[in-house]
Amino acid sequence: MPFHVRPDRLARLQAELAAVGATADGGVHRPAFSDAHVAACRWFQDTAREAGLETWMDTAGNQGARLMVAGPEAPSLLLGSHLDSVPYGGAFDGALGVLCALEVLLAAREASIRLPFNLEAISFTDEEGRYLPLLGSRAFTGTLPPEAQAQLEASLSPAARAAAQALGVDPTRLDEARRAPESLVGYLEVHIEQGRELEQRGGGVGIVTEVVGIWQYEVCFRGAADHAGTTALPARRDALLGAARFMDRLATATVQADPAYRSTVGTLTVEPGALNVVPALTTLGVEVRAGSVDGLRVLEALVHEEAQAAAQAGGLEATCTLTARVDPVPLHPQMQRALAHGAKHVGVAGYAMPSGAGHDAQALAAIVPSGLLFVPSRGGRSHGPDEYTTPEDGLHGARVLAAAVESLAQADVRP
Amino acid sequence: MPFHVRPDRLARLQAELAAVGATADGGVHRPAFSDAHVAACRWFQDTAREAGLETWMDTAGNQGARLMVAGPEAPSLLLGSHLDSVPYGGAFDGALGVLCALEVLLAAREASIRLPFNLEAISFTDEEGRYLPLLGSRAFTGTLPPEAQAQLEASLSPAARAAAQALGVDPTRLDEARRAPESLVGYLEVHIEQGRELEQRGGGVGIVTEVVGIWQYEVCFRGAADHAGTTALPARRDALLGAARFMDRLATATVQADPAYRSTVGTLTVEPGALNVVPALTTLGVEVRAGSVDGLRVLEALVHEEAQAAAQAGGLEATCTLTARVDPVPLHPQMQRALAHGAKHVGVAGYAMPSGAGHDAQALAAIVPSGLLFVPSRGGRSHGPDEYTTPEDGLHGARVLAAAVESLAQADVRP
Repeated sequence: MPFHVRPDRLARLQAELAAVGATADGGVHRPAFSDAHVAACRWFQDTAREAGLETWMDTAGNQGARLMVAGPEAPSLLLGSHLDSVPYGGAFDGALGVLCALEVLLAAREASIRLPFNLEAISFTDEEGRYLPLLGSRAFTGTLPPEAQAQLEASLSPAARAAAQALGVDPTRLDEARRAPESLVGYLEVHIEQGRELEQRGGGVGIVTEVVGIWQYEVCFRGAADHAGTTALPARRDALLGAARFMDRLATATVQADPAYRSTVGTLTVEPGALNVVPALTTLGVEVRAGSVDGLRVLEALVHEEAQAAAQAGGLEATCTLTARVDPVPLHPQMQRALAHGAKHVGVAGYAMPSGAGHDAQALAAIVPSGLLFVPSRGGRSHGPDEYTTPEDGLHGARVLAAAVESLAQADVRP
Repeated sequence: MPFHVRPDRLARLQAELAAVGATADGGVHRPAFSDAHVAACRWFQDTAREAGLETWMDTAGNQGARLMVAGPEAPSLLLGSHLDSVPYGGAFDGALGVLCALEVLLAAREASIRLPFNLEAISFTDEEGRYLPLLGSRAFTGTLPPEAQAQLEASLSPAARAAAQALGVDPTRLDEARRAPESLVGYLEVHIEQGRELEQRGGGVGIVTEVVGIWQYEVCFRGAADHAGTTALPARRDALLGAARFMDRLATATVQADPAYRSTVGTLTVEPGALNVVPALTTLGVEVRAGSVDGLRVLEALVHEEAQAAAQAGGLEATCTLTARVDPVPLHPQMQRALAHGAKHVGVAGYAMPSGAGHDAQALAAIVPSGLLFVPSRGGRSHGPDEYTTPEDGLHGARVLAAAVESLAQADVRP
């Protein structure tokens, strides 16, 4: 029952999809519920239907295609990713995973293979979080917070609402997108790494062990708005200078604690924000990432300690408030084994590694055994037009995915 | 011919003026061309007229009062400051100088003194720069840049335009506010220190030697917008972290170079400004202040050196662009002597000191011998409701000003 993905077809599908919402510089602009996003989803549905697959969509706008090889009562192995992009993003993030899933279904159909489960390919809605991060996959797994519907309804413009409706979205009935876990045997996703590790190793694929957790903080430094001319520097309580020293200290402490840890200050505002006034209030958006809750606790302690130390040195008050918390998500050992087996079968090196970014697979892991496979990103670049994965690496993704499907067919993968 | 300021009258005038645009917390809100600013200027004119002084206004909205004691052909010694405040500012910045000037004219009129010059009190327009810093005093001295009229016209709201017109402003004829230098013998201004030096010395008055120069820069750090989860910290080119290290280095280097120097980063923006993206571009508003051009050159070199050092350490590009340059303004030795003599006459300690802040006196110094007297600011606070100068210190200002006028009457003060 071996089945083979076809490089020529994968390349053609990839070229067709990359043209949808293409930007002049080689990227794509397909934010969730834009016209280009709708067009990409339609392309997915049309392509699947023309190839003889059944298609479906749900009230969260997730788009599916099914290859019925085990009968209508059998559960499905789900393969997929997402077709929305960040604004002015790249043609690979998400798209490659949907393409690999689609190609595996087409190849399986061609080979008339028999499997103990059906195969479904899926494109999840708004993975990038233009409205809500992992909107589609969290609706699909019933893990959206209760306020999500109201949030989505409140934030959709008339144009976005029309686009969402064209994808089947009903913001008042997101809960109906929840898929019964017993109808699934598992989920596998191919995604670009968005980091440099595979490239530095000379290629291969990444078998993701866990998606790191992300804890976010608002850190405020409060000082006094003194006159920038009359107040000597040692007499100042400069909230921006204190924040600067905090950022320097936090970066140094994070690297010292563990090279795998991440801390980032991505936003900063200053008040009163005048050239001739010593800053009185600086507000920072800080996030930390680690593969374990223990690691996140270490990082949380660093945020608090370094903020207090910088505040004390500068005569400031510092406050740290947790604003968002997503805990690490381990991926299923059996799915990791299936992907590792697939890599071995294809003859490509497979490396166990964490995912530093969030992915639909972390939502799926809440209800079914889930696996995530990384392929190399040139220069580690993503979320821009310079995002690139070679055709060879993309093909590796599809081939390892197909081999993992075969591997799972020979095992009992029900949880 | 001695004449004496009256503490009771000064206190009454001060209470009346502080009520105009008063805020609930004890400050005043009199931004230029607000209703409260217009009301304060009207109060000045009405009070002067009721006391028998002539009043005038010019096309820049400067409000004057004249005591003719030397005949219509004689030049005037000008005394004054400004009645506009920063938004939600204090009741002393500017106002105290106008009050002292008015009280000196009233006391001189009461004493029927004879002087070799006439006396004028003036309230300059928009010293604080809601529209243009030192708008009134630069129009008065003919030192506004050519584009000032267009800038002012473009930025006045209909309400502000009406208020400005009520003060005599004609934005198309600002140049007509220029006062002939030969009609003046000099300018003296009393102002709150806005710093802590006099308080730390236990009181007294400051005889200002020069107004420091202010050079301003836009400093940009450019890195790369990497993914905050997938990019290890040592591999990042974090434009905000580089800016943080620059701020820390600049503050340290400024203090080491000379305790009298000032450097301040008062504004900062981050792009793309997302929690999960490593900052690619950080833009800082930096200003440096020193009492000499040589000192400013030292500070300019520090800005460039520390920016380059921080950029190099972080794999960034840094650019520093001079955006504004106001050179130091020395105050006239004869006016310094007159103020020092006045302080001695009144029996209050006088300390030579620079002014770290800009004042109308620096504009006047371009055309006539000018002097600036500081009185203590409690805690060095200004530009807020906690700005405060005791009645005794305010009275010292008026008395030293009156004694300086007498001193100048006995000297040949023509330049």
